[in-house]
Amino acid sequence: MAHSPIQDYLEALHARFRDLKSGALADYIPDLSLADPEWFGICIATPDGYVYEVGDCRQPFTIQSVSKPLTYGMALERHGEARVLEKIGVEPSGDAFNAISLHPKNGTPLNPLINAGAIAACSLVTGDSMAQKTAAILETFSRYAGRPLDIDHTVYQSESATGHRNRAIGWMLRNFSVIEDDPTATLEAYFQQCSIRVTCRDLAIMSATLANGGINPVTGQRAIPEKFVANVLSVMATCGMYDASGDWMYNTGLPAKSGVGGGIMAVQPGRLGIAVFSPRLDQQGNSVRGLAVCHALTADLGLHMFDASQRTIPAIRRATTRRSVKSNQRRSQAANDYLLSVGKKLRLLQLHGALTFASIEPVIRLLTKETDTCDVFILNLKLVPRIDHAAASFLAGIRQKVSALGKLIVFSEAGACWQNLIDTGVEREAFFSDDDFALEHGENRILADHFPDPAERGQTPLANCDLFQGLGAQELALMDQLLGSRAYAKGQTIITAGQASNELYVLTAGAAMVSITTQEGIARLDAFSSGATFGEVAFLDRSPRSANVTALTPVSCRVLTRADFDKLDSIAPLVKISLLSNLAGRLTTMLRQNGRELASLK
Amino acid sequence: MAHSPIQDYLEALHARFRDLKSGALADYIPDLSLADPEWFGICIATPDGYVYEVGDCRQPFTIQSVSKPLTYGMALERHGEARVLEKIGVEPSGDAFNAISLHPKNGTPLNPLINAGAIAACSLVTGDSMAQKTAAILETFSRYAGRPLDIDHTVYQSESATGHRNRAIGWMLRNFSVIEDDPTATLEAYFQQCSIRVTCRDLAIMSATLANGGINPVTGQRAIPEKFVANVLSVMATCGMYDASGDWMYNTGLPAKSGVGGGIMAVQPGRLGIAVFSPRLDQQGNSVRGLAVCHALTADLGLHMFDASQRTIPAIRRATTRRSVKSNQRRSQAANDYLLSVGKKLRLLQLHGALTFASIEPVIRLLTKETDTCDVFILNLKLVPRIDHAAASFLAGIRQKVSALGKLIVFSEAGACWQNLIDTGVEREAFFSDDDFALEHGENRILADHFPDPAERGQTPLANCDLFQGLGAQELALMDQLLGSRAYAKGQTIITAGQASNELYVLTAGAAMVSITTQEGIARLDAFSSGATFGEVAFLDRSPRSANVTALTPVSCRVLTRADFDKLDSIAPLVKISLLSNLAGRLTTMLRQNGRELASLK
Repeated sequence: MAHSPIQDYLEALHARFRDLKSGALADYIPDLSLADPEWFGICIATPDGYVYEVGDCRQPFTIQSVSKPLTYGMALERHGEARVLEKIGVEPSGDAFNAISLHPKNGTPLNPLINAGAIAACSLVTGDSMAQKTAAILETFSRYAGRPLDIDHTVYQSESATGHRNRAIGWMLRNFSVIEDDPTATLEAYFQQCSIRVTCRDLAIMSATLANGGINPVTGQRAIPEKFVANVLSVMATCGMYDASGDWMYNTGLPAKSGVGGGIMAVQPGRLGIAVFSPRLDQQGNSVRGLAVCHALTADLGLHMFDASQRTIPAIRRATTRRSVKSNQRRSQAANDYLLSVGKKLRLLQLHGALTFASIEPVIRLLTKETDTCDVFILNLKLVPRIDHAAASFLAGIRQKVSALGKLIVFSEAGACWQNLIDTGVEREAFFSDDDFALEHGENRILADHFPDPAERGQTPLANCDLFQGLGAQELALMDQLLGSRAYAKGQTIITAGQASNELYVLTAGAAMVSITTQEGIARLDAFSSGATFGEVAFLDRSPRSANVTALTPVSCRVLTRADFDKLDSIAPLVKISLLSNLAGRLTTMLRQNGRELASLK
Repeated sequence: MAHSPIQDYLEALHARFRDLKSGALADYIPDLSLADPEWFGICIATPDGYVYEVGDCRQPFTIQSVSKPLTYGMALERHGEARVLEKIGVEPSGDAFNAISLHPKNGTPLNPLINAGAIAACSLVTGDSMAQKTAAILETFSRYAGRPLDIDHTVYQSESATGHRNRAIGWMLRNFSVIEDDPTATLEAYFQQCSIRVTCRDLAIMSATLANGGINPVTGQRAIPEKFVANVLSVMATCGMYDASGDWMYNTGLPAKSGVGGGIMAVQPGRLGIAVFSPRLDQQGNSVRGLAVCHALTADLGLHMFDASQRTIPAIRRATTRRSVKSNQRRSQAANDYLLSVGKKLRLLQLHGALTFASIEPVIRLLTKETDTCDVFILNLKLVPRIDHAAASFLAGIRQKVSALGKLIVFSEAGACWQNLIDTGVEREAFFSDDDFALEHGENRILADHFPDPAERGQTPLANCDLFQGLGAQELALMDQLLGSRAYAKGQTIITAGQASNELYVLTAGAAMVSITTQEGIARLDAFSSGATFGEVAFLDRSPRSANVTALTPVSCRVLTRADFDKLDSIAPLVKISLLSNLAGRLTTMLRQNGRELASLK
C-alpha cells in the first residue's frame, strides 16, 4: 500500500500551522482556560465515510457554539420551517457572538447562530425539562457523530455558574414571548448542549453528515431530515462566523460554524466534511489555527463553493441508436435488415449522476427535439443514484407529450428512480428490468407496422434451419438420420452452464433463451425461435458451456454430437464444409454486432 | 418536435404571477416611472448556451444595481483581490441600498453592492475620464451579454440630475481617500453604468456567464477571469439583496443581484443563469414578481445551492482489469494465458467529470490501496473536461509514490488534463494517445519478467502458421502450391477499407496492424506478427473490407483467393475442413474476448 498523498498534504498543512501561536484560550468560562493551547487536529471525512486525521483528532473538548446549527435543525424538524421562522430570523446581525441582537420590532433573535437565536432554538427542542431536552440533544448529536456523546459536567457547571448574560437573554426572549414559558429549563439545557464533549473527528463526521444530505456516512443513520439540511447550511453560510461571516464566505466559500472550545466545522455540501481543532481564539472567538487551516485548505484544494470547477456534469453518459445496440432477441434477416436501416428510430440514452433540473434539462431538450426522427427512446437509469421531484416531473411531462405524438419513452434499470417516477404519474408499463427487454419492446413496436407478428412457426423442416442452408435433399436426409431428437417442456433447462460441450443444437419447434445468472439476477444473452442454431460457440472451441439455455415454450430440438460431426469428415466432407461455413457466417454476424456495440460503448 | 415541458413550466410560472400587481415603480428617477408596470419576463440560460424565454424578455430596461457585481469584477481584474479589499469590504451591511454604510474606522464601504461600494468599484475601473470608464464598462458588459449594449441617455440625464446623495457618497469616499482624486468622473461613469440598457434575456446570459466560470456560453467569449468569479458570486450571496440577503439565501440559496429597473439576475453556479424582469418594486427596491418567481423557481426546481441533490459524482466511471480488457496487440497463447491469469495486476480506470479534490479523493484512495495487488494503472481521461490544480497535484503525488514501489500509473486520452498534469511534474512518457497503446505498454511491462522479448521471429513456415494447424506435410505442400506470395514495404497498405474481400491472408514475416480512421484519428483494431491470419472476417461473410491493414515492418504474406478456397471443396475437402475449423476457433476466441469486454463496459 502506498502512502496517501492526501494524508501527506494534511500532515504538511498541520506542520505549516503548528507554530502559529497567536490568540488566547477562552477564559470566560474558567474550565476552558485549562485546555492545552498546543492541541491541534485536522480531520476530513468523505461522503462515503472515509476519514483522514492528523494531530489531536481524538482529544475531547466541548462543542460550544458548533452545536447551534444542529439544535436549529432539531427545532426545524419538530416545528417546521414556518413556525421556526416566526421565532428566529435568518439575517446576519453584524454584531459580536454574545450581542443580544433582537429584532427591533418584535424581539425575535436575528438568526439562530447568535446566542439569543440558539437559546430560542433550544427552547423549541422536544422536552419540557432540562433532562428531556438534553437527552434529545445528546441523542441527535450522537447520530451526527456516529457514537454516543456525553457531557463534560465540569464545564457545564462552569457555564451555568457564569451564564448571567445568557440568562438575561433568556428572560428577554420570554419578555417578547419568543420563549413561551419559564426559560430556566431551556437555559440549563442550552448550557448542557454547549458542554457536550466531541473530538475533531466527531466534528468532521458531523460535517460530512450535513454534506451527505443528513445521513451519517459512517453509520448510515439519519441525523436530520434531508429537507432541512439546506436551511441549516444557509444560516451557517450567512451567519456562521459571527461578524466575520462575509469575509469567511468570500475567502473559504463554505458554510461553517466555530465554537469557543476551539473547534470549527466546515461543510463542502455534497462533497466533504472538514473539522479543525485548536483552542487559541482570535478576538471574534474563532480558532486562530482553525481559520488559517480552513483558508489554506480552500485555496489549496479549490473547495470554494462558487469555484467554477464545481460545475455540473451533463446527465447523458452515452447516446446510441438501434444501429449499434440491439436486443438479444434473434430476428429474421429481413427484420434485422429493416431495424438496421431505420436504426435512428430507436435511441438508447444512458443517464448518470443525480438527476436535478440542471442535469435533466439537456435530456428534456434532446427528447423534445429528437421526436422528429425517433419513435422509441429508452432511458437507462442504472447509474442514477437519485432523481429529485423536479427532474422526475419533467421526465413524466415529456413522456406524455411524446406519447401524444405516437412515440414512446421507456425506462430500464430505474432502481433508485422508480418510486419518484411512479409518483409523478409514469405508468408501470414504462419500466423494464434491463436494456435487453426494453430494446426488444422498442424493436417490436418499430417492426409492428412492417412485420406483423408472424404466426407461431410451428415445426421448422431441416431445410429451413439456419445450419443446413445450402444442403441438397440427399444431404438433408443424411443429417436427418444422424441427428438425435429431444423435446423439452416450457421452462425446462436444455443446456446447463459448466457442462461439457459435445453437442450442437438446432431448434425445430418453439422458442428458447440463453441466460446467465449475475449478481443482479438473470441476464438474457440470446433469445430465438425455431430454425435457429444454438450452443455453437462452446461446441466449436470445445470449452465448457458458459450459459444456460431454457425452453420458453414447449421445444423440439435436433442434436448433432461431436462424434457425428467429426464422422462427417469421412462420410460427407462437403456437408461438413457447409455446416462450418454456415457456423462461421453466424460467428461473423455476432462479431460485427459486438463490434458496433463496443464502438458505441467506448 | 414535441413541445418542451420546461417551456410549459415557465409559461405556467409566468401565468401564475402575472396577476401579482403589488409594489410600485421606482420613482426616485422620473424616467423609471415611465416603465410599463405590466412588463414581465422570465428567462433561463444554460451553461451550454440554450435560452428559455417567456414574456417580455426582449424589452430593454436599465440595468441599475445589477451592474454592481460586474464592475466589482472589473475592479478585481484590474487591481487584484488584495488591493480591492483594502478599498471595499465584503461584509453584509444590514442597511438599505442607499445607506452610506462606511466602515466606522477607515471609511471603506462595507461591501461592493451598496452604492458606496459600487461607486468605489467604479473608481477602480480602467480610465481617467467618464468616457474612458464608460467605454470599458460597456465593452465588458457587452461581453457578458454577448451583444453590443448601449446607454439610455434619458435615464442617464435623470440619474445625473438627481444623484445628489451619490455625489455626497462620492465626496465622502474622497474624504477617506478610498477615491484618490476628484470623484466627478467616477460618479458620472457610475450614472452611465446604471443606465446601460439590457433585456431580461441579456441578464440571463450574463448570469449564465458567471455560472459558466466567466465565459459567455453563447459566444464563447470570456467576460471575467475565472479566478474572480467566486469573489463576485460570494458578495452576491452575502450582500446581493440588500437587507434581505440572509432571507434570500435561506429561501433561494442562489447568489443574486436586483436592480431598481426591475431586473433580478440569479446564478446557480456551474449550472444555470436565471433572470426575471418586472418593474414593480417592494420597499427594499427588489422586483416583487422577480422575488416571487425566484422563490417559486428554486422550490419547484430544487435549485438551492445547499440542496443535497447537488451532491458530487465519484470520478470513477468504470474500473476494469486485464481480465476483461486487452490491447489490440495479438500475443501468443502462452502470453495471453499468463496475462489473463494475472489480470488483476493491470487496472484500467475510466474517470469522468471535472476532477476536483472531492472527486479525485476516492481515486487517490483506490490507487493508494491497490498497489498491493496491482502493478500497472491506466487512467483514461477522455471524459474529464478539466482538472484543477489540486486534483492534478494529488495525481502527480500518488504517481511518484507508486513509482517508488516499482509500479506504474499512466494516462490515456489526457486531452484537456494534459497541460495541468505536465505542470505538476508528470513526465511525458506517462501519456498515451489511447487505451490500446497504454494497455500494450502495461502488458509488455507485466510480461517482461516472464516472456522476455522474443527475437524477431523471421520467416514463419506454413506449418507454424495459425491457419494451417493440423495439416500434414502433403496438405501443406498443396497449400504452398495454391497460395500466392506478396511482399510489402514498411508503412505500405496491404488491405484498404471498402474493397471487396476475395482473399484470405497469412503473415509469414514481419508485423502489421489493422486500423480504421475515426474522427479522433487512427484507431488500431488489431496488431500481429508472423504466423497470424488476417482479413478473415470479411472473407468469410463476403462483405467489403471494414478496415485498413498496414505493414509495420517489411512484410511477407501468403494469399489464398476465394476461387482456390472454393476449389478446396473438390480437391481437398479435409484441408478445407481444417481451415474452416481453425478460422472458427479464431472467431470464437474473438467473440469471447468481446463478450468479456462488453460485460465490463455495461
